[in-house]
Amino acid sequence: MAETDFERIFHPRRMAIVGVSSEGGYGFANGMLLACRAMGFAGEILPVNPKGGSFAGQTIFRSLEEIPGDIDFAVIAVPAPAVPEALEACRRKGAAGAEVLTAGFGETGTPEGRGLEQEIREIAARGIRVVGPNCFGIYCPASGLTLLPGPDLSREPGPVAFLSQSGGMSIDLAHLGGWMGLRFSKVISFGNGADLREAELLRYLTDDPETGVIAMYVEGVADGGDFFQAIREAARRKPVVVLKGGLSEAGGRAVVGHTASMGGSRAIWSGVLRQVNAARVESLEELAQACLAFSYLPARVFRGISAVGGGGALGAAASDAAEAYGIRVPEFSADLRTRIEAILPQPGSSAANPIDVANPFVPPALLGRVLRLAAEDGRVDLQVLISLLYHYKSQARAMGVGVADITPHAELAETVATAAADSGKPVVMVLPDLKRGPEDLDLAEMMARAREEFTGRGIPVFGAIGEALRAIGHVSAYYGRRLLGEES
Amino acid sequence: MAETDFERIFHPRRMAIVGVSSEGGYGFANGMLLACRAMGFAGEILPVNPKGGSFAGQTIFRSLEEIPGDIDFAVIAVPAPAVPEALEACRRKGAAGAEVLTAGFGETGTPEGRGLEQEIREIAARGIRVVGPNCFGIYCPASGLTLLPGPDLSREPGPVAFLSQSGGMSIDLAHLGGWMGLRFSKVISFGNGADLREAELLRYLTDDPETGVIAMYVEGVADGGDFFQAIREAARRKPVVVLKGGLSEAGGRAVVGHTASMGGSRAIWSGVLRQVNAARVESLEELAQACLAFSYLPARVFRGISAVGGGGALGAAASDAAEAYGIRVPEFSADLRTRIEAILPQPGSSAANPIDVANPFVPPALLGRVLRLAAEDGRVDLQVLISLLYHYKSQARAMGVGVADITPHAELAETVATAAADSGKPVVMVLPDLKRGPEDLDLAEMMARAREEFTGRGIPVFGAIGEALRAIGHVSAYYGRRLLGEES
Repeated sequence: MAETDFERIFHPRRMAIVGVSSEGGYGFANGMLLACRAMGFAGEILPVNPKGGSFAGQTIFRSLEEIPGDIDFAVIAVPAPAVPEALEACRRKGAAGAEVLTAGFGETGTPEGRGLEQEIREIAARGIRVVGPNCFGIYCPASGLTLLPGPDLSREPGPVAFLSQSGGMSIDLAHLGGWMGLRFSKVISFGNGADLREAELLRYLTDDPETGVIAMYVEGVADGGDFFQAIREAARRKPVVVLKGGLSEAGGRAVVGHTASMGGSRAIWSGVLRQVNAARVESLEELAQACLAFSYLPARVFRGISAVGGGGALGAAASDAAEAYGIRVPEFSADLRTRIEAILPQPGSSAANPIDVANPFVPPALLGRVLRLAAEDGRVDLQVLISLLYHYKSQARAMGVGVADITPHAELAETVATAAADSGKPVVMVLPDLKRGPEDLDLAEMMARAREEFTGRGIPVFGAIGEALRAIGHVSAYYGRRLLGEES
Repeated sequence: MAETDFERIFHPRRMAIVGVSSEGGYGFANGMLLACRAMGFAGEILPVNPKGGSFAGQTIFRSLEEIPGDIDFAVIAVPAPAVPEALEACRRKGAAGAEVLTAGFGETGTPEGRGLEQEIREIAARGIRVVGPNCFGIYCPASGLTLLPGPDLSREPGPVAFLSQSGGMSIDLAHLGGWMGLRFSKVISFGNGADLREAELLRYLTDDPETGVIAMYVEGVADGGDFFQAIREAARRKPVVVLKGGLSEAGGRAVVGHTASMGGSRAIWSGVLRQVNAARVESLEELAQACLAFSYLPARVFRGISAVGGGGALGAAASDAAEAYGIRVPEFSADLRTRIEAILPQPGSSAANPIDVANPFVPPALLGRVLRLAAEDGRVDLQVLISLLYHYKSQARAMGVGVADITPHAELAETVATAAADSGKPVVMVLPDLKRGPEDLDLAEMMARAREEFTGRGIPVFGAIGEALRAIGHVSAYYGRRLLGEES
């Protein structure tokens, strides 16, 4: 079998969408055509349906054979029994691959479903690679391929790859990551994984120069030994973050019906992931946060941090969380402490590390000076700055102005980014979003823009102290164990 | 010493604010006066400053003596050295209590600071109860007392009390709880706790008929044995949720400087809280979520749940999280499964429990029927419904309408509340907020209103599956251990 041409799969110039209906509606094929167009997909889109007609201004080919010339890739969204024939036609048209969105295969547990999935596997073996069936497809920001139902994902590429057996998890991470500042190389929802699945895709992403971090949502693996080899090699070269679904009895039941997977026990998964040095996460949110840290922070161990916030409990919370993830908050020397104290508001501040700057309204320039001073401690490898921007709303109200008029988030982002660059010590922001009622949409807008100010300058932003430290802990633990592995 | 008149402290009819300045500015006293007025505080506010003058239309008394008649309560926000004299004057004016917002006492670690705090203690012993110093005050929705800098907290009272050594934590929880649907009886930021503090306040809240759940943020306790007795008795009668700050080395350093507290070790705290059956949480967010569950759910053990969502990975995630917190997701009988399957979209759905309703657009009426059927299983004590409302935005975009026009959140809330009431089995909603960029403020508004639709009908809403199950787990574990304690 010829080597897979992943380039033609992820950056197709000519893509058939099989199942587009001239009667409109919101079927998968029509939805995918509109979504790819909304995304500005640069290639040619070739809709196919035996009934012909047209949709959204495009003539629908009655068959794949009718399309002049070869195709690179196809989206297949016809009823399950018609999938094998459509896939075979794509293969004959020279497609390097196809994604099958349709459900109703192995996951049904019926002989018919299993038989149809076996047919897909046999056609694939003859020379077309298949993503799916029962999946949401491929999101590739560089080419404009998108997931169901994603007309509005970012076109900005980045280092995060995501392999997901669940379509829902793939589109959820694409959306969640979008506003968090995650940027993706490829997101691949592979559903039942009749052909392409975890081990082979891991190997592809391990070699993919566009991918710096590999995240996975796994329900079950086809070949444990092969997966072990693939993930071990991947984690030797890049951070790998794994969310395993279906570890409980009921969760295992769910994944059988979802993607026809066998779950595996919690103890086995926990052991394997530790052994191969993959970061194990417990939720999609934690996965996104870990990817944010891996893609924004330098590739290194963070032995110690400074924690800076306006309010004493913030520093205590950051210190407690840091220790829980094996990171120290070293006490500053008397000299450094005195120099920091000299610039902080009094009373109510503290400069021992954690640093309590006393209130949430300390000007950005002063915070920048605090960060520069704290960076002088050689035991500080990273700084965490917690800012309760929501307090500006009460302030704005008292002054009779809008919250956007007085919150210095852009200035703060610029100051923080400069302090990080000048000191060579990264800064992680924590911007808790503590007011989110219908009467606080002005705050929602400000917080969203503040986040962009920071992420646009390469500063990762988390919504809670514990989440930030947990994510930093994943990065530090990964590089620490990798270092140990390289030494041994 | 006479019994403390907490009624006059929490519902003062005549309240002095000492330190109000005719020169305006945003000092604590002026801020508190404006905040109480914005809250619609029903009592009389009596500003005091030796310089006299007026502020915000109110004449400032030159001394407490100048005020005709007695006062019930006072807010003191003058420089630290002037606090003892002001407090003594309040005592002579018959005040039952005072809150001292000023910092610069024991937490500074200086002999001057410690001496001033000792003076406060001595005056208090002569018959005025003191909250603080170095605190944000008292929030009592029923009377309109508020925390610094809180002009915009809810006036709607409810069952949650919060005792906090940290002022920041108190105002943060008041804001965070507001939009989450938490309603408070009393929030007391007691700072250094020179007089009133954890044990005595716990005893007050244990007897307080307005309080159903007691949450605490503790940095250190004054008298370990007394605290143990007080929290044990409290937890026998009401759920008690505890966040302990400063358990790490650096965190311990932070709390010494913050509220002059001695931290105590992680092992001791963990043991004590288990022994007295208090729920231990690791963050302010988890504390708020636990309080939401305790105040919205019935007082009982939840042995088993159903988990309902549109997407197979959601059910797997809910099942895995449930098991982690000791809650089962029992597999339905073949009969019940068949009856649920008969009404679900095909293919892609699953009715084994967890229930996968296949997509996020299943109409509320159908979800209501699913909940009613699932409630028939005697092993199901509670139902968790996960709804990814954000997907309506792509749908709305495809239809060329606004997301608010097509998202059936009000109908869903009504249906869910009715199903819960009719079946006698509570429903917990999970509404993940996965799109929060600046271009999605329409979604932010819709999500905020959706949350209100549910909480207004007594249905608690969580933002993530794991957070919901963790909170349900706290409730179930508390009542389970209480039941065991009562039997033994």
